[in-house]
Amino acid sequence: MNFDENPHRRYNPLTESWVLVSPHRAKRPWQGQVEKLANDERPAHDPDCYLCAGNTRANGEVNPNYEQVYVFDNDFAALLKDTPDEKYEDGELFLAKTERGVGRVICFSPAHNLTVPEMSEEGIRAVVDAWVDEYNTLGSKDFINYVQIFENKGFVMGCSNPHPHGQIWAQSGIPDEPLKKQNAQAKYWAKHNRSLLADYLEKELEKKDRLLFENEHFVALVPFWAVWPFEAMLIPKRKMARISEMTSEERDALANAYKRLTVKYDNLFETSFPYSAGIHQAPTDGLPHDEWHWHFVFYPPLLRSATVKKFMVGYEMLANPQRDISAEKSASILRDLPEVHYKN
Amino acid sequence: MNFDENPHRRYNPLTESWVLVSPHRAKRPWQGQVEKLANDERPAHDPDCYLCAGNTRANGEVNPNYEQVYVFDNDFAALLKDTPDEKYEDGELFLAKTERGVGRVICFSPAHNLTVPEMSEEGIRAVVDAWVDEYNTLGSKDFINYVQIFENKGFVMGCSNPHPHGQIWAQSGIPDEPLKKQNAQAKYWAKHNRSLLADYLEKELEKKDRLLFENEHFVALVPFWAVWPFEAMLIPKRKMARISEMTSEERDALANAYKRLTVKYDNLFETSFPYSAGIHQAPTDGLPHDEWHWHFVFYPPLLRSATVKKFMVGYEMLANPQRDISAEKSASILRDLPEVHYKN
Ligand SMILES: O=P(O)(O)O[C@H]1O[C@H](CO)[C@@H](O)[C@H](O)[C@H]1O
Ligand SMILES: O=P(O)(O)O[C@H]1O[C@H](CO)[C@@H](O)[C@H](O)[C@H]1O
Repeated sequence: MNFDENPHRRYNPLTESWVLVSPHRAKRPWQGQVEKLANDERPAHDPDCYLCAGNTRANGEVNPNYEQVYVFDNDFAALLKDTPDEKYEDGELFLAKTERGVGRVICFSPAHNLTVPEMSEEGIRAVVDAWVDEYNTLGSKDFINYVQIFENKGFVMGCSNPHPHGQIWAQSGIPDEPLKKQNAQAKYWAKHNRSLLADYLEKELEKKDRLLFENEHFVALVPFWAVWPFEAMLIPKRKMARISEMTSEERDALANAYKRLTVKYDNLFETSFPYSAGIHQAPTDGLPHDEWHWHFVFYPPLLRSATVKKFMVGYEMLANPQRDISAEKSASILRDLPEVHYKN
Repeated sequence: MNFDENPHRRYNPLTESWVLVSPHRAKRPWQGQVEKLANDERPAHDPDCYLCAGNTRANGEVNPNYEQVYVFDNDFAALLKDTPDEKYEDGELFLAKTERGVGRVICFSPAHNLTVPEMSEEGIRAVVDAWVDEYNTLGSKDFINYVQIFENKGFVMGCSNPHPHGQIWAQSGIPDEPLKKQNAQAKYWAKHNRSLLADYLEKELEKKDRLLFENEHFVALVPFWAVWPFEAMLIPKRKMARISEMTSEERDALANAYKRLTVKYDNLFETSFPYSAGIHQAPTDGLPHDEWHWHFVFYPPLLRSATVKKFMVGYEMLANPQRDISAEKSASILRDLPEVHYKN
């Protein structure tokens, strides 16, 4: 089967869903604008930024003069810890349950003008350490069963503050996406007594056509079932259910892979590349979760330039995701990009 | 349970998925711009528009001087009918199948400067008739098992041409979203020998707090499990598996409801309201599909103004959809809006 010729559907065994691939469409004439964005020059400290060190936030709290990462409760969190435990049910068709949770914000660096690809590996390692601490602390609370760590980067991703930061939403329920992945991994584990992603990784390391790079502990690749044009995944070589199982060397290796992938992204269109990225891992419900092999996914919306993005609308909202460029083609483009940031 | 106070999760029995609702967040200060857009004045005929009557398209074909609707094969369709039947499989983790299909474009009107809410009910009725014809013709082909009818409206929805039009993607496989709805409806049908949506509608007509309006044959409402801020649904009162079962009166009533809903949408922020909308109905695989109760869903992205939209990013991509304003509040806002277009 020629992945770059014929329209086809691909199966995602982690979420048990499909993506429609229309590779022949990559050839169609382009009607949108293709432009570079002016480089957005920001000061290292912005007195109006509520994430910068020493500044006062909307609720009157003053940020400390932090030097690496700084983590605090989101002032406008979507989840609250004091929510009473209630249920609304009317037959099978009306079901709602209150949800307890915590929203946290992680400033990745005091430098307002940096982003992950421009940070040092040591600086990123401090972010990784903060994630592990938060996962442990939040996960140990009895009303928290799932901890979602993520980063929204760029205005086009609804991120209104360019200061390098991420979020954590921790809650009682297990959200749909990780639950799907858990169920698929559990089925695979029950059947083979092996990790789905370890087996997948083994095959990808043989096939090579979707690999981006690897270091001692992580592989970066465009998954076979990628939905976004330049979607990518960082997979630990060792099966671990949760990020707290990483050794110190593995944490360093994660910081290295996070930086290398995002440098490639920035180099693709010579722009600060927007994305939503996040970690899927075992719930904190007290169960062992041997089926889980945690991983870090990147969903970037850009398609052809700094300003032309892929819209997941219409058919995608109503049917299933669709892409034009094949995962193999995207991987080969990203693989060939330099690992030195274009600004250097 | 107070839907407008406490964070909660709601269950969607049609897709068996959840949405996180954070109604307390609707109170947070707004940092984005809130602005009106200048009214986009367009000519009734644009010589550069490839959808206008009499104009030449990219492939050299000339559009006829159509007077109501005009339907043609998409010049850059994501699906092709001559795709060979092939499969790629390697263990359980790599699965792809070629997909045959057809992409169609429907011009809703020759008038370049109209949109559905500004069209006459007779004009919209012609669109409904065209949908039924296409569903029947495409559905009768042996390699077409599902017909997705949809409309992407507005630049913010990736629609690059403002000429009023919709699309149809018809294909061999059944895409994920309608398949989920089919499975849920089939389970409900097997258990109760009743339509899930008919039972749902009955309860909503009693409860009233999510209703927008009704006519003799359709109800417009914000579903209990709505994801987008002003998401809405048109549900036929009579259980029909597919749009081709509509009587002539029902087709008129659908045109009436489509117009009334989109007029309310335009009036909300006094702007041409963007959305993706589409019809979920029975596959054309030759089976009776008694479980199906077809319906028309509207997914509009705007949140607070003509320019402030809800971003489904980060948490939404990685966990599950999240909304701030409750479905009941959105319904009450939409219900109270006039049914006369603000431009009149
Ligand atoms: O077909 P169009 O209008 O070029 O493209 C638009 O609708 C398609 C179907 O919903 C989407 O796949 C595209 O991302 C969107 O830009
Ligand atoms: O929390 P923020 O940065 O205000 O908001 C952003 O991220 C959230 C979590 O992904 C989303 O729900 C919002 O739609 C998005 O604008």
